[in-house]
Amino acid sequence: MDARSLPGHADLVVRRFHPTPDQYAWTFGGVDPVERVSPGEVLELYTEDCFAGRIRGIGDLPATSIEYPFINPQTGPFFVEGAEPGDTLAIHLVDVAPARDWAVSTSVSLFGALTPTQLTASLQDPLPERTWLYRVLEQEREVVFHAVDSDFETRFPLQPFHGTIGVAPAAFEVRNALVPDAFGGNMDSPEVRAGTTIFLGVNVPGALFSLGDGHYTMGEGETCGAAVEGAMNTVLVVDVIKGTFCEWPRLESDDAIMVAGSCRPLEDAFRIAHAQVVRWVAGAVGLSLMDAYQLVSQAARSRIANVVDPNYTIVAKVPKRFLPGDVRWMAGVHERLRSIGAEYLSAVHRTPVWSPG
Amino acid sequence: MDARSLPGHADLVVRRFHPTPDQYAWTFGGVDPVERVSPGEVLELYTEDCFAGRIRGIGDLPATSIEYPFINPQTGPFFVEGAEPGDTLAIHLVDVAPARDWAVSTSVSLFGALTPTQLTASLQDPLPERTWLYRVLEQEREVVFHAVDSDFETRFPLQPFHGTIGVAPAAFEVRNALVPDAFGGNMDSPEVRAGTTIFLGVNVPGALFSLGDGHYTMGEGETCGAAVEGAMNTVLVVDVIKGTFCEWPRLESDDAIMVAGSCRPLEDAFRIAHAQVVRWVAGAVGLSLMDAYQLVSQAARSRIANVVDPNYTIVAKVPKRFLPGDVRWMAGVHERLRSIGAEYLSAVHRTPVWSPG
Amino acid sequence: MDARSLPGHADLVVRRFHPTPDQYAWTFGGVDPVERVSPGEVLELYTEDCFAGRIRGIGDLPATSIEYPFINPQTGPFFVEGAEPGDTLAIHLVDVAPARDWAVSTSVSLFGALTPTQLTASLQDPLPERTWLYRVLEQEREVVFHAVDSDFETRFPLQPFHGTIGVAPAAFEVRNALVPDAFGGNMDSPEVRAGTTIFLGVNVPGALFSLGDGHYTMGEGETCGAAVEGAMNTVLVVDVIKGTFCEWPRLESDDAIMVAGSCRPLEDAFRIAHAQVVRWVAGAVGLSLMDAYQLVSQAARSRIANVVDPNYTIVAKVPKRFLPGDVRWMAGVHERLRSIGAEYLSAVHRTPVWSPG
Amino acid sequence: MDARSLPGHADLVVRRFHPTPDQYAWTFGGVDPVERVSPGEVLELYTEDCFAGRIRGIGDLPATSIEYPFINPQTGPFFVEGAEPGDTLAIHLVDVAPARDWAVSTSVSLFGALTPTQLTASLQDPLPERTWLYRVLEQEREVVFHAVDSDFETRFPLQPFHGTIGVAPAAFEVRNALVPDAFGGNMDSPEVRAGTTIFLGVNVPGALFSLGDGHYTMGEGETCGAAVEGAMNTVLVVDVIKGTFCEWPRLESDDAIMVAGSCRPLEDAFRIAHAQVVRWVAGAVGLSLMDAYQLVSQAARSRIANVVDPNYTIVAKVPKRFLPGDVRWMAGVHERLRSIGAEYLSAVHRTPVWSPG
Repeated sequence: MDARSLPGHADLVVRRFHPTPDQYAWTFGGVDPVERVSPGEVLELYTEDCFAGRIRGIGDLPATSIEYPFINPQTGPFFVEGAEPGDTLAIHLVDVAPARDWAVSTSVSLFGALTPTQLTASLQDPLPERTWLYRVLEQEREVVFHAVDSDFETRFPLQPFHGTIGVAPAAFEVRNALVPDAFGGNMDSPEVRAGTTIFLGVNVPGALFSLGDGHYTMGEGETCGAAVEGAMNTVLVVDVIKGTFCEWPRLESDDAIMVAGSCRPLEDAFRIAHAQVVRWVAGAVGLSLMDAYQLVSQAARSRIANVVDPNYTIVAKVPKRFLPGDVRWMAGVHERLRSIGAEYLSAVHRTPVWSPG
Repeated sequence: MDARSLPGHADLVVRRFHPTPDQYAWTFGGVDPVERVSPGEVLELYTEDCFAGRIRGIGDLPATSIEYPFINPQTGPFFVEGAEPGDTLAIHLVDVAPARDWAVSTSVSLFGALTPTQLTASLQDPLPERTWLYRVLEQEREVVFHAVDSDFETRFPLQPFHGTIGVAPAAFEVRNALVPDAFGGNMDSPEVRAGTTIFLGVNVPGALFSLGDGHYTMGEGETCGAAVEGAMNTVLVVDVIKGTFCEWPRLESDDAIMVAGSCRPLEDAFRIAHAQVVRWVAGAVGLSLMDAYQLVSQAARSRIANVVDPNYTIVAKVPKRFLPGDVRWMAGVHERLRSIGAEYLSAVHRTPVWSPG
Repeated sequence: MDARSLPGHADLVVRRFHPTPDQYAWTFGGVDPVERVSPGEVLELYTEDCFAGRIRGIGDLPATSIEYPFINPQTGPFFVEGAEPGDTLAIHLVDVAPARDWAVSTSVSLFGALTPTQLTASLQDPLPERTWLYRVLEQEREVVFHAVDSDFETRFPLQPFHGTIGVAPAAFEVRNALVPDAFGGNMDSPEVRAGTTIFLGVNVPGALFSLGDGHYTMGEGETCGAAVEGAMNTVLVVDVIKGTFCEWPRLESDDAIMVAGSCRPLEDAFRIAHAQVVRWVAGAVGLSLMDAYQLVSQAARSRIANVVDPNYTIVAKVPKRFLPGDVRWMAGVHERLRSIGAEYLSAVHRTPVWSPG
Repeated sequence: MDARSLPGHADLVVRRFHPTPDQYAWTFGGVDPVERVSPGEVLELYTEDCFAGRIRGIGDLPATSIEYPFINPQTGPFFVEGAEPGDTLAIHLVDVAPARDWAVSTSVSLFGALTPTQLTASLQDPLPERTWLYRVLEQEREVVFHAVDSDFETRFPLQPFHGTIGVAPAAFEVRNALVPDAFGGNMDSPEVRAGTTIFLGVNVPGALFSLGDGHYTMGEGETCGAAVEGAMNTVLVVDVIKGTFCEWPRLESDDAIMVAGSCRPLEDAFRIAHAQVVRWVAGAVGLSLMDAYQLVSQAARSRIANVVDPNYTIVAKVPKRFLPGDVRWMAGVHERLRSIGAEYLSAVHRTPVWSPG
C-alpha cells in the first residue's frame, strides 16, 4: 500500500489497498492488520460484496454458493498509528462508489425479518432462496429491480453505503462479521455513507478497523436480510481522539449527530441509541438530563437500520439545526476530516454519488 | 351537528362538532356514538389535547393534574352510515390545524422509553415529572422549546398530526385510548396528518371511529412518552369500502402506501407492518410473494412511530414512485376523498400547515 | 343458583351453577353478572372447555369447528357482594375436577410458540391444524396421549387447573377471554389449581369474576398453543379484602406466595412478576428493598406459564419455607378460605385429584 | 496434570487440575489449552468463583473489587483428544462440590433483571451495589442468607451447579465468559449439576472446553444478576461422539433430556430450546413433527435459567418417563459416562451434595 500524492496537493498522502481474496477478514478482532495507516492519510479501498462476489446471477443461491461463516468479507483490519484503548477512532467516508455496474440481492434460508430464523425458531420449512440481479444505471443514479417470477421492473435510487464498519471488540472478543454491537460491525445503516464521520471507541492498540458489505441501496430494516449488495470503491480518512471513549458508535454528518444502538429486542436497540444521544446532547450543549430528554424526544429523526442480524440496529439521529451552532461535536474532528475529503474530491474531480444531506 | 353548505359549493355538506367535556370518549368501543355521519360529508372537528387541557404551564404535572385513565380524550365516536363488520372505513384528513398558540409536553412517572415503566418494571424510583411549555409561531410554522433547567431555547417545525385515530375493536373488546392495536388507536404516527387517508377494518355496525391526541410536532419514537401536545381543529371526510376488510391500519398519501403494525416487542410491530405491506403489494401489483418481499426490502421508507405505549408502533411505508402508476389502491378512495378535501380547502381558502409529501 | 346446606354442616352455604351455552361470557368486563354471590359461600361450578365443547374427535379442527372470537367460554361473571374498586377479591379453589373422561388438544393455525402467528408475522404458510384426543384414566390419575401419525402412546399425570380466571379490567376496558393481563384472564398457569387462592384487584363494583379454560395437564409454556383441554367441575370460595388493591394477580398456596406477570416480550412478564414479588416480600417481612431483591433472587421457584397468548405469562414463586412463618400474607385470607374448603371436602368425602404441594 | 489411578480401580485414570490465577481463561475460544485430556479420563478440577475470589465480605463491592472483563474465570480450556469440528463433546458431571464454607452474592451496577442495564438502557442512576455473605452448613446441606440492612436470616438448600460451561465458538468467534450462546457458556442453568451430561457441538479441533462460575444455590432467572457464588471442586468425565453435531447445548440426566436456548428476547430463547427438543424427540422416537410438537407441549418441565446475561437462557426439559424406555439418547453416552462416574464415587466414598433427580 504505497503512498502517493496528488498533483498540486502535496499535503495529501493517498494510499490505495485492494485486498486479494486471501486477505479478507471474516471477523472483527482476532486478525492481524493488513496495513498500518496514519491519521490524516487518505485511503482508497476496494471492498467485495457480502457474498465475496460468488453470487453473480439469479441461478446462484446462497445455500450452494456460500459457505457460512464466509460472509461479509472485510477489507482490513488497519492498524491506526497512535490509537490506544480508551481513545476514539474517527473514520470519515469521503466517497463510497459502486465498483460494478451490477449488484445482487437474495433471500436466505432461515434469515430475514419475515421468516423464522435460527434464533426466532419455528417448526416450519424455511422460505425458498431466490436471487435478484440488479443493473446499475450510472447516469440516472438508479438501480433496476427485475422480478424473478414475472416481467415487473422498477428502479430505486442509487444510495451507496457500507453495511459493515467497525473496530476490534472489547473484552478479548472476536465477533463474526455478521454481528453489529458496541464496536460497530454489521449495523446496516444507510447513515454510513459518503460525508459521514463514524466514531468508534478503541479497544485494542491500533483500533484495527475494517469495513465491507457495500449496499447500493436498501429499504429501512433490510427486511429480507439482504440489501442490493455490491463491491465498492471507497475513500476515507481517519483520525484519533485521544482520551475520549465512545461506548457506542457515534456518527456525524454536516447536518446531524447520531448514535447507533445494536441489540435485541429492537426496543433495546432503540433504548441504547437514544439514551446515548440524550447524554451526549446534555453534556455537549450543557443541558440538564431531563431537558435533553425532552429535546431529543421532539427532535429525533431516528431510523431503523436492520431487523435481521444477530443484533438489531437503530440509529438515533438529532439534526444539528435544532442544536446550538457553536458546539464543537467530538472535538471538531468531522470538520477537519471533511476538509481533507473535500480537497481530495476536488483534486480527483469527483463528487459522491449520494450527496450528504 | 347541523349540516351547512359552503357558498358556491352546494355539493359539499359540511358539519362541525366541538365536544363538551362530558362528551369525551376515553376508550375505543363501549361508547355510544355522539353523532351519525355519512360518506362524503366534510366534518370539522375539535379535539382536546391528551391531557384534556389540564396541563397549561410548567407547574402542572401529570401526577397532580391528571387522573388515570382520563387521558387521550377522544372526539367521537361517530357512527358512519353504511359501515358494517367486514367493510373498511376510510378517513381522509383534509386539514389538521393547531387550535391554540401554545402546547405542552411532559415526562410522566413510569412512562416513556428511557425509564422503567409498569411493564418494563424495575426496583428503581421513577424519573421526575417535568412539564415543558411550547409557544407556537404561526407565521414561521415553528414551535419554541424552552428548557426548564436553563435558558436554552430552540425551535422545531410545526408538523401537526393526530396521535390517536381508530374504530371500535373486534372480539367484543373495549380498549383504553392509550392503546394502539389492529383497530388503530394510539399509534402516535406522524403519518396520520393532513393529506393522508387512513383505512380501518370495520368491526361493529357504524364503525364508531374517533380521534384525538393532537401533536404539534414529535420526534421518531415519542421517546419521553409525550409529543408537543395540543388541541386541534381538524377537517376530514369519510368513506366506506364494502366487502373489504383491512386486518391492520392502512394509510395512503399521494406519495406512499403504508401499514401500521402495533405490538411488543418492537420487532413484532415491524413484522406485522411489513408482512402486511408485502402481501398488499403482491396482490395489488400482481407480484409473487417473494418478488414483493424483495421489492419492499429495498423500497421501504418505514418509520418508528412509538416505543412508549402499551403496544409499540412501526409504520411500513412504500413510496408509490417505486410501484406501477396504474394501480388503484383501495379502490381509488384516497383520490376521491382527496378531491373533496381539495374543494373544501379551496372554498375556505386554507392550506394545511404541514403540506403532504 | 339456589343455596343448599350440607348435612351436618349447617354453616356451609353451597350453591351450584352450570351455565347454558347462551350464558357463556367471552370477555372480561362488558357483561352483566349471571349471579350474585357472597363471601364465604361455596360455589360448585361447571366450566366448558376452551373450544366450547365443539372439538370432540381428531376430525374436528379449529378452523372448521370454532368461530373466532368464540373461544374460552367463561363461567360467570359473578357479582361479589361488597367488592368495590380498590378492594381485592380472593378466590380459593377448593376442587378442580375433570368433568369428562376425555379431553382434546390441537394445533391452531397462526397460534403457538413454534410457528409464525398474527403478531410474530411471517410470509410462510401456517403449520397444519391437528387434533389429539386424550383418554382420562381416573383411577391412575393419568391422561393418555395417542399420536395421530403413528401408534405411539404415552401417559401424562392428571394435573387439572384453570387456564383462565379473572375480573373485569380497569380503565373501562373489556378484554377478550384469550388475553391475560393485570386483571388475570388467560394466564394459563398450572398454579391456578385446587388448594390455591388467587387475589385480584377489584376494578368495578362486584368485581365480576369468571373462570374457564380447564386444562387436564399442560407442559410449561403451553408450547403448541393448547393444553389438554377439558370441561371441569370446580368448587371455590370467595372473599373480599377491603381497602387493599393488588396491581397484578397474587396467588397463595400452603407452600408458596406468587405473583403473575403478563406482557410481551417474555422478559417484561418476568420483570413485572418479580418486581411485584420483591416489593411484596419487602413490605410483608419488613426487609429493605435490596435485601428482598437478594432473597427473591436465590429463593424463586418461578415458572413459565404461557408463551403463546396475546400476552405471555410468568409466575414468580417464593416458597414460604424461606420466609418467616409468622407473616400473615394477605390478611390471612388463604387460611380462612382453606378451612372452609376443607370442611366442604370432608362433608362431600372428596379429595382433589391434584393435591396441593 | 499427572494421571493417577485409584486403589482397586486400575481402569480409572484420574487427573487433577487446579489453575493458578494466571491460568484462568476469560473467554470461550481464543485461548490455548491448559491441558490435553482423553475420553474416559476422570478430571478433578478446581474452579474459582465468578469474582475470581476477590469479593470475600460485605465491604467488597463489584465496582471497586472487580475490573471488567475479568469476571467468570474459567478453568480450562481443555483440548479433548479426538474431538473434531462436526463432532459432539459430552461432559458428564460426576460431582460438583463447594470448595469453601462461605459464598457471596452481590447486586451489580447496571446488571440484573429488575434494573436498567447497559442494554436495557434508561436515564436513571443505577441501583446501589451490595454484597451478601453466605455461610455454608455442610451437614444440613444449606446456605445461610443474612440481610445487610436488618437481622433477618433464612436458609436455602445447598444445590451446587456450574453457571458456565462451554466450548470454543463457531465462526472464528471468541466470546467473553459472561455470554451464553450455541456453544454453551454462561447459561446459568441449575440443570448443569452432578449427574448431568452436557453435549456441545465441536467447532474447533480439541473442542477446547472450560467451566466455572460455581453456584451454591440460585433462584430461577438469577434475578439480581448473581447467584450464591462460590469456588467448586468438580469431577467430570468426557467423551466424543463422532460425526454428530449438536446445534445447541443438549443435556441428559437419568430422568430427562433437555436443550438450552440462549437469546434475546426471552421468547426467542424459549423458541430455540423447544424447537430443538421437538425435533430431537421426533427423530429419536420416530414421531411426526406435529406429534412431537404436541407431546412436548404437554410434557415439558422447562425452566428459566437466566434473564440477566447478554443472552437470556431457557432450558426445555422433557422427562424420560413420558418417552419410550428403549431410546438410546445420544448414542448411550450418558449411561456410559455415568457408570464411570459411579465407579469413581464409589472408589472415593463420596456422594454428590445435590443428588440427581
